[in-house]
Amino acid sequence: MTSLIDRSNLDFLLNRWLKVDELLTRPTFAMHDLAEVSAYLDLAEELAGDQFLTHYKLADQVEPKLTEEGVEVLPQIKQALEQFAEAGFFSAPFPEAYGGLQFPELVQAAGMSLFMAANLATSAYAMLTIANARLLVAHGSPAQTEAFARPQIEGRVLGTMCLSEPQAGSSLGDIRTRAEPDGDSAYGPQYRVTGNKMWISGGDQNISENIFHLVLAKIPQADGSLPEGTKGISLFIVPKLILSEDGSPGIRNDVDVAGINHKMGYRGTSNCLLNFGEGARFRPGGRAGAVGYLVGEPGAGLAIMFHMMNEARINVGLGAAAVACRAHLLSVTYSQERTQGRLERGGNPVPLIAHPDVRRMLLAQKCYAEGALSLILYAAHLVDECETAETDKERAEADLLLGLLTPAAKTWTSEWGLAANDIAIQIHGGYGYTRDFDVEQLYRDNRLNPIHEGTTGIQGIDFVGRKIQKDGGAALIALGKRVRSTCSSAAADERLRNHAADLETVWDSFVSLARSYQDVGRDVMLSNSTELLQAFGHMVVGWLWLDQALVASTANSPLQESKIACCDFYFQTEMPRVTNALRNLARQSSLPANVPLGVFGIQQ
Amino acid sequence: MTSLIDRSNLDFLLNRWLKVDELLTRPTFAMHDLAEVSAYLDLAEELAGDQFLTHYKLADQVEPKLTEEGVEVLPQIKQALEQFAEAGFFSAPFPEAYGGLQFPELVQAAGMSLFMAANLATSAYAMLTIANARLLVAHGSPAQTEAFARPQIEGRVLGTMCLSEPQAGSSLGDIRTRAEPDGDSAYGPQYRVTGNKMWISGGDQNISENIFHLVLAKIPQADGSLPEGTKGISLFIVPKLILSEDGSPGIRNDVDVAGINHKMGYRGTSNCLLNFGEGARFRPGGRAGAVGYLVGEPGAGLAIMFHMMNEARINVGLGAAAVACRAHLLSVTYSQERTQGRLERGGNPVPLIAHPDVRRMLLAQKCYAEGALSLILYAAHLVDECETAETDKERAEADLLLGLLTPAAKTWTSEWGLAANDIAIQIHGGYGYTRDFDVEQLYRDNRLNPIHEGTTGIQGIDFVGRKIQKDGGAALIALGKRVRSTCSSAAADERLRNHAADLETVWDSFVSLARSYQDVGRDVMLSNSTELLQAFGHMVVGWLWLDQALVASTANSPLQESKIACCDFYFQTEMPRVTNALRNLARQSSLPANVPLGVFGIQQ
Repeated sequence: MTSLIDRSNLDFLLNRWLKVDELLTRPTFAMHDLAEVSAYLDLAEELAGDQFLTHYKLADQVEPKLTEEGVEVLPQIKQALEQFAEAGFFSAPFPEAYGGLQFPELVQAAGMSLFMAANLATSAYAMLTIANARLLVAHGSPAQTEAFARPQIEGRVLGTMCLSEPQAGSSLGDIRTRAEPDGDSAYGPQYRVTGNKMWISGGDQNISENIFHLVLAKIPQADGSLPEGTKGISLFIVPKLILSEDGSPGIRNDVDVAGINHKMGYRGTSNCLLNFGEGARFRPGGRAGAVGYLVGEPGAGLAIMFHMMNEARINVGLGAAAVACRAHLLSVTYSQERTQGRLERGGNPVPLIAHPDVRRMLLAQKCYAEGALSLILYAAHLVDECETAETDKERAEADLLLGLLTPAAKTWTSEWGLAANDIAIQIHGGYGYTRDFDVEQLYRDNRLNPIHEGTTGIQGIDFVGRKIQKDGGAALIALGKRVRSTCSSAAADERLRNHAADLETVWDSFVSLARSYQDVGRDVMLSNSTELLQAFGHMVVGWLWLDQALVASTANSPLQESKIACCDFYFQTEMPRVTNALRNLARQSSLPANVPLGVFGIQQ
Repeated sequence: MTSLIDRSNLDFLLNRWLKVDELLTRPTFAMHDLAEVSAYLDLAEELAGDQFLTHYKLADQVEPKLTEEGVEVLPQIKQALEQFAEAGFFSAPFPEAYGGLQFPELVQAAGMSLFMAANLATSAYAMLTIANARLLVAHGSPAQTEAFARPQIEGRVLGTMCLSEPQAGSSLGDIRTRAEPDGDSAYGPQYRVTGNKMWISGGDQNISENIFHLVLAKIPQADGSLPEGTKGISLFIVPKLILSEDGSPGIRNDVDVAGINHKMGYRGTSNCLLNFGEGARFRPGGRAGAVGYLVGEPGAGLAIMFHMMNEARINVGLGAAAVACRAHLLSVTYSQERTQGRLERGGNPVPLIAHPDVRRMLLAQKCYAEGALSLILYAAHLVDECETAETDKERAEADLLLGLLTPAAKTWTSEWGLAANDIAIQIHGGYGYTRDFDVEQLYRDNRLNPIHEGTTGIQGIDFVGRKIQKDGGAALIALGKRVRSTCSSAAADERLRNHAADLETVWDSFVSLARSYQDVGRDVMLSNSTELLQAFGHMVVGWLWLDQALVASTANSPLQESKIACCDFYFQTEMPRVTNALRNLARQSSLPANVPLGVFGIQQ
């Protein structure tokens, strides 16, 4: 079997580090045991290798195509997702009441990482569908859940999220899609939706029997104008095919594909500009307007959508980590197989991996790729904590931590996972630059991740403007307790003692720096928000490496040496970046905000 | 006209900063005046826009194709290069005796930057041809120069460099191509060349009437074995078509295309695996073996080839800088045109460039892109100094500095130019990830630059193992004088005083660190060589920004504000990276060299 993600590490992270066995003692998950978790991952690995990896390159070459009938994708994608459905992977994280397996999020994420490593673009259809159905389970009415969540949980229908518009990407408050009341329906208040939605992944395809779009739109006010800002946004389910009375797919709704985007990578996932309600080709009930059903209260759309968006952000990080992990394994293999150069004049040729500079690259890559994976699995574990921890207090704390870590989980993994992919090309040399090897495609696939679901810049603003300030910085205080707990345990281990001391120093500096940013003006905050988030992410991953090294050293794990070496490398070469960033940030520079546009040659 | 590279900056760099007028007072260049330089750049800008930029995207979509007759490239590439030849751009840097324009290298590089910004892949054919012909002018016999350099100077024939083999990329000592003596010829000692050459840019094409390959090969010893190592390498001219007696292209030589590489980017440049001497399709004189002519002495091949390789390294840097500069201009334009978000709640929507985080990205990008351009033009000026400075001492010093700066000029520009291209995608958001915009292709094109002509790792070893150690560190001493001279002038300018002090501190730390690395063992050296080179490059570019800001502030230039803002930004956010790197390097860690392979899951 092709190695997608180092399974021994994945097992370590689940079993030793995040103690999935403790999760399995909770009533929600008590029907499962460790053997089932292991079998689940075995099956994921096998299916990912057999059905997802196998069309990885082909899906890059044969892009989704727009025809009169809609978007056609590679038949292998359909087949892979059918197998994925049949094996129960769509339903894995859902409650048994919905036909789900009721697995912990941690296990679901670990399983999904294998599919994403094999083929990020094919996995994206599943990821979006699961997140769509989950939103409906959490916020939909019983009738909506039954009609729209269940077919997605069964994998018969795929789902999308329709947020951006051509003129409104990061700025969702500016969306112009309208939803006009259109009476009542079996699925709650019915509306007619009109507008254009851009960047819709899986916006159309010929894979599933129907497509359920979750669409952000605004309900006009009494004077016909749209409410301003994000508080005027509502959420609607808009099916591609309107359901017949028995719930089966019926007539075409007024949703049409206006175009598809041709991307740098991630090509297997169709990406569409959708027109809702133009009435040009499809006129349900004889008139224009896409039929949609309100989810939750009017005006609560963005808040509800954040349920899906936060999940999607973690999943973006999971994909970035998975793709980086596969690139790392490919790099290890290549650098063992490729002979080049000598260690000393007149010596024998050696494999690439014998060269210190190659090992340096492999170490950095491993620290980034596996560091990213650990950050996401930590976040997934927090999702489980939010839902199943014993006390209210524990659940609230997990929620607080998840909120704080989400921007880092999305951003750090995207930026540094990509760095790991860049290193993979470099290690492969000229071969890595050719399309005969996978590493250049893995890079191109991963390059989307710092952009979609909120760019790095947007995450930085969320982090500095909201997450670290909320409730008087309660989240940082909660995280600080965990960081200090790791440090105090690590201080007892002579191989980790210095790292623990370093981490404590860096943590303290970060916290006081973060506090100092609560009083700065917007110019200073916005000039530094991205770097502040990046410093935070880099520090958090250092903590996670130390925590893993600690667990490995006490768990008598065969990975012990590996975890300690990565921890040593990370604290030697990566943590100083944090210190350096904190020193820069302490200047509270507003140079970017105040730079005159003439500097860029713009006449004012 | 599309803006390829900010012309006002290019003019500043040439006229104000590097004082091209002083070069034009030297006998070699005295036939030119400033107006001619300006007209030359005008023409380059126009031709680059009209003939190179126009097929930029198409050449990415329609890749070179291998047919029975050889490699076919886009007809527009042929047309562009014909125009390039007709306008005299092939001959620009050559002496009048060869029909050249005898322009300074500085001017040639500035002109070439415009073509590279417009279309790196099409420019590469010209760049290689010029470098090939220059090698011949410097090292070929008069007959070789007449027969093989002149048609390239006229742009009728294109040239290549054939170094790598499938099993020997970075490690040229391991090449296996053989050259067996085959009597004498009008072009000197004739050989029959047999072997496989990999990664040959322009290795075949249907653009020019002939192709002249410069091929590294080994002449067998008396016992038939090939001499070991790089000292056994000789250099040969191998034409695709053997010249008829009148010098016109004659019969096919035994050079065949075994395959073409399909690349991530840079696609317009055909890239071939060439078989020399297999005799399968072409048998000159009735037998296998590619006819080639020895250039220089046997065994001197690699030393001579370094003439071309060093030039190619600077040109790789020039291409990286040019592509980064165009991406920067596209980013500035896009961030003015694209409206997104508000600066305050309830305010009006603003262009992207109003957001501090976008300005931060633009500043960083400008510092990298234009910093890279300045570094390469500085190096090009040193080439002119090497050849035309008044005294032996000045020429020797220029040579020393050029040698020291070449690894940085190749590496820093490649790595940070690429970072500028990455930022361009980020600024364009989702649109930047589509192939409708140029920025993703510019990124893909530039990704080759840290790989070819010696990877970043190879440059690091050259820098630390040779360049800073040579002649007791004479090159660093010479550079130090220039750095200090800038600092002492800048100390008199109150806006630059702090930067001057910072630079002096960093420079002193670097020099003492570099000295400390002269005594370390191989493990420490090779574990840190890349980071040492990167720190050096980052520091040197800081010096160049300070030097430009200084000149701008005294030259009453309209660019003054821009140069000072970039200098401020660079010293605020970029120079601390150098300090941080130097602190890491001072540890003299050999962790990468000594990391056990078990860390990567390799069983030993």
